[in-house]
Amino acid sequence: MTLRVYSRFITLEGGEGAGKSTVLSALRDVLSATGTDVVSTREPGGTPLAEQIRGLLLDTHHEPPTADTELLLVFAARAQHVRETIVPALERGAWVISDRFTDASYAYQGAARGGDIEFIAELERRVVAIAPGMTLLLDVPVDVGLQRARGRGAADRIEGERDDFFERVRAGYLERARLQPQRFRVIDATQPAAVVAAQAVAHLREWLERNP
Amino acid sequence: MTLRVYSRFITLEGGEGAGKSTVLSALRDVLSATGTDVVSTREPGGTPLAEQIRGLLLDTHHEPPTADTELLLVFAARAQHVRETIVPALERGAWVISDRFTDASYAYQGAARGGDIEFIAELERRVVAIAPGMTLLLDVPVDVGLQRARGRGAADRIEGERDDFFERVRAGYLERARLQPQRFRVIDATQPAAVVAAQAVAHLREWLERNP
Repeated sequence: MTLRVYSRFITLEGGEGAGKSTVLSALRDVLSATGTDVVSTREPGGTPLAEQIRGLLLDTHHEPPTADTELLLVFAARAQHVRETIVPALERGAWVISDRFTDASYAYQGAARGGDIEFIAELERRVVAIAPGMTLLLDVPVDVGLQRARGRGAADRIEGERDDFFERVRAGYLERARLQPQRFRVIDATQPAAVVAAQAVAHLREWLERNP
Repeated sequence: MTLRVYSRFITLEGGEGAGKSTVLSALRDVLSATGTDVVSTREPGGTPLAEQIRGLLLDTHHEPPTADTELLLVFAARAQHVRETIVPALERGAWVISDRFTDASYAYQGAARGGDIEFIAELERRVVAIAPGMTLLLDVPVDVGLQRARGRGAADRIEGERDDFFERVRAGYLERARLQPQRFRVIDATQPAAVVAAQAVAHLREWLERNP
């Protein structure tokens, strides 16, 4: 089983405080301005049921999930997101931009949480089965990202992890980018937000030229 | 990886309206009467988080999960149940009786829903990793069971399935029992509830003699 790659499917990845939301808006605006049908979405979430699963994953008031429970909840939400939101949009010809996708599981549940990468890969093949054509990784040192994220208010369950957890997330993402250099574009997200967004837009424009 | 079998872990299985609740009470009473520490629990559920996942699985007001989402939510709840409730109880020496466990996934998500049995087996090995010493299967023809279950009030999402779904559930359970005859005790649950409970108690007493 190999993954089906959709060139019109773009994902944004990065740790806490990397600036994904700003970039997502910029990319959506560029596509919309040309009259393109574009769906912007996020993980965990992207359907009503998947958003409820997100609540179980992130709320700090719930009993915390074990590592295995977390992994399966993330992929349960992703299976729903792919089937109910992403693939229907792609099949009607829309572009889809997602704030996080399967790479996040390799970084968070794999590299940071110590989950078995082979098992994550099998879940990806069996219940996700698709992959984005291009992934923008917003890379930022952990201390810079956390300072930004923690300025936003109360931390969710993941944001409340220790700094070494986020060091492993960052290393996990960079390893994914190293293994799949043709799909990834790594952007230095310590730059001002407008510069980061402009670089992301430049990657999108180049991608559009190659994938009209 | 093989499953760790706990002789003090007993599961009840069966379709809708098989009478599992009555049998569970009878077994718990027998164990409690001898001063035994016994935990009775159920699936999906058995921890606060797993009960919330049960709500997502069974409520008819939610967006229905896809087959893959259902499978992963069931195993997410089970992973939590095993780690937080079942294994801690067994490790302190208690007996555990669960209304449904992994066999239910082979019957419902596998045989009835058409899920890949090999994938279910891998989820069992990786995130469950334990098995009951004895399983009582309360077997009842689908029409009899559904008539009982539907007399109980509003149907949940699973109870609202078509009759052929439950025919496959029943066949899936009987196949599990055929494959593992040493673990399973199949009880004819068309008999009066008191007779079914008495036969279940007799199986428990025999089991206790062999596993004091």
